[in-house]
Amino acid sequence: MASLTSSTSRHSSAMPKVAQFKIGLCQLSVTPEKTTNLSRARHSIEIAAKQGASLVVLPEMWNCPYSEDYFAKLAEDFDDEDGSPSYFMLSEVASCHGITIVGGSMPEMKDGRLYNTCCVFGPDGKLKAKHRKLHMFDVNMPGDILYKESDTFTAGDNPTIVETDMGRIGIGICHDIRFPELAMLYRTRGAHLICYPGAFNMSTGEMLWELEQRARQHVIHKFSGQQITRYFTLLLSSEKLYVASCSPSRDSAGSYTIWGHSTLVGPFGEVIATSGHEETIVIAEIDYSALQRRREGLPLENQRRGDVYQFVDIEEQRL
Amino acid sequence: MASLTSSTSRHSSAMPKVAQFKIGLCQLSVTPEKTTNLSRARHSIEIAAKQGASLVVLPEMWNCPYSEDYFAKLAEDFDDEDGSPSYFMLSEVASCHGITIVGGSMPEMKDGRLYNTCCVFGPDGKLKAKHRKLHMFDVNMPGDILYKESDTFTAGDNPTIVETDMGRIGIGICHDIRFPELAMLYRTRGAHLICYPGAFNMSTGEMLWELEQRARQHVIHKFSGQQITRYFTLLLSSEKLYVASCSPSRDSAGSYTIWGHSTLVGPFGEVIATSGHEETIVIAEIDYSALQRRREGLPLENQRRGDVYQFVDIEEQRL
Repeated sequence: MASLTSSTSRHSSAMPKVAQFKIGLCQLSVTPEKTTNLSRARHSIEIAAKQGASLVVLPEMWNCPYSEDYFAKLAEDFDDEDGSPSYFMLSEVASCHGITIVGGSMPEMKDGRLYNTCCVFGPDGKLKAKHRKLHMFDVNMPGDILYKESDTFTAGDNPTIVETDMGRIGIGICHDIRFPELAMLYRTRGAHLICYPGAFNMSTGEMLWELEQRARQHVIHKFSGQQITRYFTLLLSSEKLYVASCSPSRDSAGSYTIWGHSTLVGPFGEVIATSGHEETIVIAEIDYSALQRRREGLPLENQRRGDVYQFVDIEEQRL
Repeated sequence: MASLTSSTSRHSSAMPKVAQFKIGLCQLSVTPEKTTNLSRARHSIEIAAKQGASLVVLPEMWNCPYSEDYFAKLAEDFDDEDGSPSYFMLSEVASCHGITIVGGSMPEMKDGRLYNTCCVFGPDGKLKAKHRKLHMFDVNMPGDILYKESDTFTAGDNPTIVETDMGRIGIGICHDIRFPELAMLYRTRGAHLICYPGAFNMSTGEMLWELEQRARQHVIHKFSGQQITRYFTLLLSSEKLYVASCSPSRDSAGSYTIWGHSTLVGPFGEVIATSGHEETIVIAEIDYSALQRRREGLPLENQRRGDVYQFVDIEEQRL
């Protein structure tokens, strides 16, 4: 059995080539016009690069409003050079500035199926990894929200962890953040950072709504959207990783109200940088030596009770 | 393999006998005098019961300062009727008021070994379960804190989930809260509530210290102890359970500064009730119908990807 302990030892947590660098989270306003979205995204990535970011993260669905009306219409087949301008813009801008891009997500059309897909490009402009959203957001809260993402999209089948100059990066898209198992899996594979592009209204809207409902019954501390996003990023930083979330801005087109608040959380659970809900770029410093200090000082890995519970990484088990 | 999915189906999440009730969290000041601690605890439990609490939770080490100087001296062998006044006080006060008590923790001496142990008593005064702290707090943060709990205490070997009139309750003590795997295990066994007695300075002191250190380097939102405690309880409420933490008050004897802030968090991640750091009783309402609404509306259980990761409950696997 590929238990947590054995997986951990298989994967080195060695420091990457660049252990201290700037990350840029591009909180973009998304319109129904793909060309507008592309030029905004390109502009934003270029500003981030000029401000020193060597790793840039985009939001979920940065090139297409989060809406049934647009997904199929604006989807791209990444293997079709003429039919995927978003994909090729990311590749081109990455190589032009010599940066790594975690390209948020885009609707991907492949063999008649639609996927919610994140493409990661290296500083040479080559595709390094492709993550298809693993967990579909199917929710039924009577009186609030009824949505079945799986009616439109096909879920991916694999976790995605990618070796970059800026460390080993695990990828999750929006609802994927709700499953700490995915973060555990990335941790056991030696991730330094997890990036979650997300249109965070989706995973938090109903939660907020319910909180408001319950606020009438209980003396509770009502959460803002910002706190909710932080809650999830904090939750995952307990894996002693850096966690970055990147969202569209609130004025984006589409049927949902977006929370914004793109955030970088460090391995001590500290919010290193965050934003409001407007279009903006969050630039923040990552220093992986903090991970090492954290992991050595409180070696939770060694304190886990493999005799009581075990976490199994199915793909690893097959190796 | 006893995967998450199969464990879930084996354990019914049916509503317990009493689905709506009051919980009392007794945040006690702990002194070096055991008799003083006993009379204070008894008084506090009685007030909670009079205020309608049918489930009362005590702090970690409520009858003994959290200090090497006292553990062995004040420890009890629970099988020795004359030598365990704390144990028998809890049993007696539970039956006297017809309440369930999650008896925080006490130093337990058994066969020459010292355990950090939580005893749960039913309304008939009978012992329903005994949890020995599973994860020892061994930490080495140079310049801050060096502590090896395992030098003094022996860790328990089993998770503890107990069927009560007030639902199925999972027990963890302090550092146990750091391991979401334990909460996952309780969730898969159908827990409605997890109670974490904790002297929360221990698990958070070094974290705070590090946050302060990092605050000098970064623009971060400095956390208060209250936020840290909330962070952990929130983290675990993502399992869609009620989570209660109960701490000694800050003016307790012993070598650590206690954070206090005993807290009840609901299945929506909402802080239902919390306290400051003074000696106090938190009385709050639990309504398990909220769990059902939460679980039905967003059925994360069904959305987990057993083909990508699995969580194994070792004890269940043996059955």
